[in-house]
Amino acid sequence: MPKPVRISLDAMGGDHGPSVVVPGAVLALERHPGIRFLMVGNEALINPLLAQHPKLKEVTEVLHTDLAISMDEKPSQAIRMGRGKSSMWRAVQAVKDGQADAAVSAGNTGALMATAKVCLKTMAHIERPAIAAMWPTLRGESIVLDVGATIGADAGHLVDMAIMGAAMARIVFDLERPTVGLLNVGTEEIKGIEAVKEAGRILREANLPNLAYHGFVEGDDLGKGTVDVVVTEGFSGNIALKTAEGTAKQIGEYLRAAMSRTIMAKIGYLFAKQAFDALRDKMDPRKVNGGVFLGLEGVVVKSHGGTDALGFASAIDVAYDMAHFELMKTIRVMLDHDPVAQQA
Amino acid sequence: MPKPVRISLDAMGGDHGPSVVVPGAVLALERHPGIRFLMVGNEALINPLLAQHPKLKEVTEVLHTDLAISMDEKPSQAIRMGRGKSSMWRAVQAVKDGQADAAVSAGNTGALMATAKVCLKTMAHIERPAIAAMWPTLRGESIVLDVGATIGADAGHLVDMAIMGAAMARIVFDLERPTVGLLNVGTEEIKGIEAVKEAGRILREANLPNLAYHGFVEGDDLGKGTVDVVVTEGFSGNIALKTAEGTAKQIGEYLRAAMSRTIMAKIGYLFAKQAFDALRDKMDPRKVNGGVFLGLEGVVVKSHGGTDALGFASAIDVAYDMAHFELMKTIRVMLDHDPVAQQA
Repeated sequence: MPKPVRISLDAMGGDHGPSVVVPGAVLALERHPGIRFLMVGNEALINPLLAQHPKLKEVTEVLHTDLAISMDEKPSQAIRMGRGKSSMWRAVQAVKDGQADAAVSAGNTGALMATAKVCLKTMAHIERPAIAAMWPTLRGESIVLDVGATIGADAGHLVDMAIMGAAMARIVFDLERPTVGLLNVGTEEIKGIEAVKEAGRILREANLPNLAYHGFVEGDDLGKGTVDVVVTEGFSGNIALKTAEGTAKQIGEYLRAAMSRTIMAKIGYLFAKQAFDALRDKMDPRKVNGGVFLGLEGVVVKSHGGTDALGFASAIDVAYDMAHFELMKTIRVMLDHDPVAQQA
Repeated sequence: MPKPVRISLDAMGGDHGPSVVVPGAVLALERHPGIRFLMVGNEALINPLLAQHPKLKEVTEVLHTDLAISMDEKPSQAIRMGRGKSSMWRAVQAVKDGQADAAVSAGNTGALMATAKVCLKTMAHIERPAIAAMWPTLRGESIVLDVGATIGADAGHLVDMAIMGAAMARIVFDLERPTVGLLNVGTEEIKGIEAVKEAGRILREANLPNLAYHGFVEGDDLGKGTVDVVVTEGFSGNIALKTAEGTAKQIGEYLRAAMSRTIMAKIGYLFAKQAFDALRDKMDPRKVNGGVFLGLEGVVVKSHGGTDALGFASAIDVAYDMAHFELMKTIRVMLDHDPVAQQA
């Protein structure tokens, strides 16, 4: 049996709080019996739910807090009010204090990132943390970062992200030398933003041992799975992520409409129902829920705020993998080769 | 019968040149009998194809050029070599000289934009032209710009694009006051890039007569069709466009695979074949082919380089509509209310 992985959960985060977090933890525990939870939040809400799940209760410690950060709280306000007190802060602090190996919150992204930055601090040589998302592709999955932690990035930030993303890919995909591409508006070396071109030059020349730099990739390479890791600054990364989600929903709507328009289509749908169910399952956004904050002195995973227990369990799975396979150690080793940090 | 619309075609542009341009023109002529063509390029290649289509030949004038701009030519080189001589230049020049009401080329985007800028010049008060794309949505279609003409945009450019996009929406959607959104990473006014926030303030305060400013929209609003016009700078616009195209292809692949995996699914597919055909038709990227260059002293439409006759005909349709419904005049009227130009 592997050594237990301890996960702290912001039980008050997200649109639904403990009513999603607790059943989410139940699902995650079934998949990873070695998991231990620290649930942070209002015990009057948490305990009755825990009482319904004796197995979960056995592996869970509850840390009571009165304060919860709301979904529309400004980051600065979340820090001012929440420091040392909010369920979000205390869940992250558990990682800092060594009580947990990773924290998961479905709270608002800006507040969570600000809390994580102030509480955990960024890693040496890393100026700006990034959020990495798993992206379903025709080849399987890729890692895409940054999907919205910061806006704009200079060449150094992009190189840092390439290295951290590759470290995550090593763990998630079990690859010795993951391929990394920089998102751009063309694949020729002369195209695009200066920072992207400069980052490309640095990565090509550095020829790192644990990262195979592929070159530029375009928006349509995301779905193809051309590379294991796609790096971009947070504005375009966020827009790419939400555009893909929106397009998937749109096509799902088209398909639903097409399959209910005629009797023949409805009969066809019945015959192919299993296939449609498999497709729906494949495209289920809850299965790729969990953005990993990279560049902090500890593992924090952000779940979608509106997700359900199944989605929240996916975010816990991600946190479990990052802790179990020692993401932090892998990033540290790989950052030793960081050409940007060495220049500094 | 409406007055004839004269379209100049760069017959050598794109991956396939006249073998796509000529049959594309045949299709467009069927839809718009009032069309007249000026086909610019190598007459030794064009004339034999025209001979096969007497009706098209009757409404087409051929302008011979020896030089064609290749698909990987750098913009600067395309100008240096092509000025006054290339099929691309001469097709655009026909618009400048009043011989054509709009030009269509499937040639490389950078070269075509550079050629159009040098030959036609930008409109007064417009610093940077943009490329506007039609985007299929759950509500119908929206206009998205800029999808890759320039990288980065200050608040003034974004406001100019909002006005030009709204002018195009007036024509395409026949709306008195189209809704316009600025693409951002969140819908709250405090979020995002400074230029986007500033553009939002200007548009809100200006309260223009022919443009209803909606506020910020996110990537997933593109597919929903939340607004008639989505404005963003060219880097993120290009990434959004290609990400959506890639996601659509990816889901198409999933669907194909799902429908051929089991006997039951195959039977279901046969029953629902008509519905699938309708869906394929709806998602056919050739039907939304044609990026409109906005901000130049004349109408230029860019077709995908790799498209076929059906796709090229769509680009001609777009050019036809822009000329027929007097896009240039509409833009000029709307720019009279440009709050940025008035500040200058």
